[in-house]
Amino acid sequence: MSRISDVAARAGVSKATASRALSGNGYVSEETREKVERAAHELAYVAHSSATSLATGRTRTVGVIMPPVDRWFFAELLSGIQDSLFALDYDLSLYGVPEGSQTRENLFASVIARRRFDGIIAVGIQPQAHELERLQRTGSPLVGVGPYDEGSSSISIDDTAAARIATEHLIELGHSSIAFIGGSADSAELSLGDSRRIDGYLAALGTAGLADQARITGAAPSMPDGYAAAVSLLGDRRTRPTAIVAVCDEAAIGAIIAARRLGIAVPTELSVVGIDDHQHAELFALTTIHQSPRDQGHEAVRLLSRRMADPDAPIEHVSAASALVVRGSTAIPR
Amino acid sequence: MSRISDVAARAGVSKATASRALSGNGYVSEETREKVERAAHELAYVAHSSATSLATGRTRTVGVIMPPVDRWFFAELLSGIQDSLFALDYDLSLYGVPEGSQTRENLFASVIARRRFDGIIAVGIQPQAHELERLQRTGSPLVGVGPYDEGSSSISIDDTAAARIATEHLIELGHSSIAFIGGSADSAELSLGDSRRIDGYLAALGTAGLADQARITGAAPSMPDGYAAAVSLLGDRRTRPTAIVAVCDEAAIGAIIAARRLGIAVPTELSVVGIDDHQHAELFALTTIHQSPRDQGHEAVRLLSRRMADPDAPIEHVSAASALVVRGSTAIPR
Repeated sequence: MSRISDVAARAGVSKATASRALSGNGYVSEETREKVERAAHELAYVAHSSATSLATGRTRTVGVIMPPVDRWFFAELLSGIQDSLFALDYDLSLYGVPEGSQTRENLFASVIARRRFDGIIAVGIQPQAHELERLQRTGSPLVGVGPYDEGSSSISIDDTAAARIATEHLIELGHSSIAFIGGSADSAELSLGDSRRIDGYLAALGTAGLADQARITGAAPSMPDGYAAAVSLLGDRRTRPTAIVAVCDEAAIGAIIAARRLGIAVPTELSVVGIDDHQHAELFALTTIHQSPRDQGHEAVRLLSRRMADPDAPIEHVSAASALVVRGSTAIPR
Repeated sequence: MSRISDVAARAGVSKATASRALSGNGYVSEETREKVERAAHELAYVAHSSATSLATGRTRTVGVIMPPVDRWFFAELLSGIQDSLFALDYDLSLYGVPEGSQTRENLFASVIARRRFDGIIAVGIQPQAHELERLQRTGSPLVGVGPYDEGSSSISIDDTAAARIATEHLIELGHSSIAFIGGSADSAELSLGDSRRIDGYLAALGTAGLADQARITGAAPSMPDGYAAAVSLLGDRRTRPTAIVAVCDEAAIGAIIAARRLGIAVPTELSVVGIDDHQHAELFALTTIHQSPRDQGHEAVRLLSRRMADPDAPIEHVSAASALVVRGSTAIPR
């Protein structure tokens, strides 16, 4: 491997200039940068990032801990985080966290503790107390995406408000038999986000004097689970609700597909509202609460940058934007 | 930050043993490993990975370059790559590649060239000649996922065979008016994978003497694009095909939704077959060609490990498994 002195000599600049040009830290003219980069390429020079890291004490790497990206929300969020980190010239080290597994234990117990990051973004994983402690013990600034109560900066929509507004939309249309699809009957498995969405649904019913109409059918946040929950909810004509609030758009779309299969017309016989404004919400004419996980990814990086620049910067909890989008899946009940 | 000598002293072992236990390189008994890890935790010891890396010449990091993960295929593939790298104790540095952007140019020109990886996995990005050269110039072993012809190991299904088998299934059922949804009319934008799937479709029609029946409607590999292509294809009753081969399941599901909206019954009036066996294929009773991107992710890491262990290991092109899965979206034409 060539050394930076070789690159500098070939480009006819000082070692310091060559280093600035290659690291991107500090000013060099565009012309000089090109000259140095050409010299570096000619010499097949690869800056030894480990040496750079030892010299500066920085790794220019952010660790991102998140669930599998097979859901729209996480995929979009990751894209937003990627874009922002790339623009700031940070590398992204990705760690997946399967729920409740040995892998998860191993991740928090040794991997995260052993690696060095300039910062960590933890997404929707709700670290347990000892996991959170381990993250904090790394000394890296930490930002959470999702509903966190604990001692790190975080960004999330107001889950309670989102579900409340979705439910109020149906109440305003005249519905009184409104079911909720999502969450888990097992409180140990109920995520904080889902739990807050259920709270919002119940609060809206309560305010409208419909508390005794509450019906919650557990479902994972996926199309197949929304489908299955809707089939069990809609099967009996006598107890069928006139409207459904789903914990997310994927579950809502599953419910719409189930209704069609059962010959129940949406929205004339059944109104359905989701939360997310998923990429396919428009295709299904789904009324929903819009949020932008991509923007939340940008915001998470902004919060982290602030704390990477100043470890004593105050902890911030940012409430991400959300808003009702009315499409064709909700209507006045027959 | 504590030093490794402090950890070793606290655990009552030599520095060399403590280093082996924490790095995972070399044998230590399970009991010793636990003792050292406990000591390290107690001292809030964080091994300085940069120093480790300078000493060993390894970064224990694999660079993964891939398109945005908002498609099922890429999300599943990434999960497979993650699982395998995690099991081998490699970090995953993720780089997104938006097509044809300045970001892309910047990524290949400077970021990838400047960073150090033990290996690189490039997914479905079809690097241009100068990009591929830059990847190879890093000196890191390289594995491609997707149809690659060039000088690196790779894994992919046989795209031509997949589309041919899907089309033959429809021909065997008795269809002769079979349209293809997918790819782009603009050959500059046509990906190698899509182009091979079109070849497979045309080959099957040709063998059956149906070459003059070929109809290709361009569509990006997404539900909304499959929906739009199907609407334009199915709108005129006189020219309507009796069957559709879609470039992927997302486009096929879009076509099924379009047919339902237009009042065309699937499969009695229209058969639809996809390629992928997407997580939602079963929900739509979609006949498709099954592939497992998660397994392909594992296989990509296996190929890369072999070349990381021995840079002179031969280049391998692995054909991933695929097979026809018949569900309810295809039938004998009326």
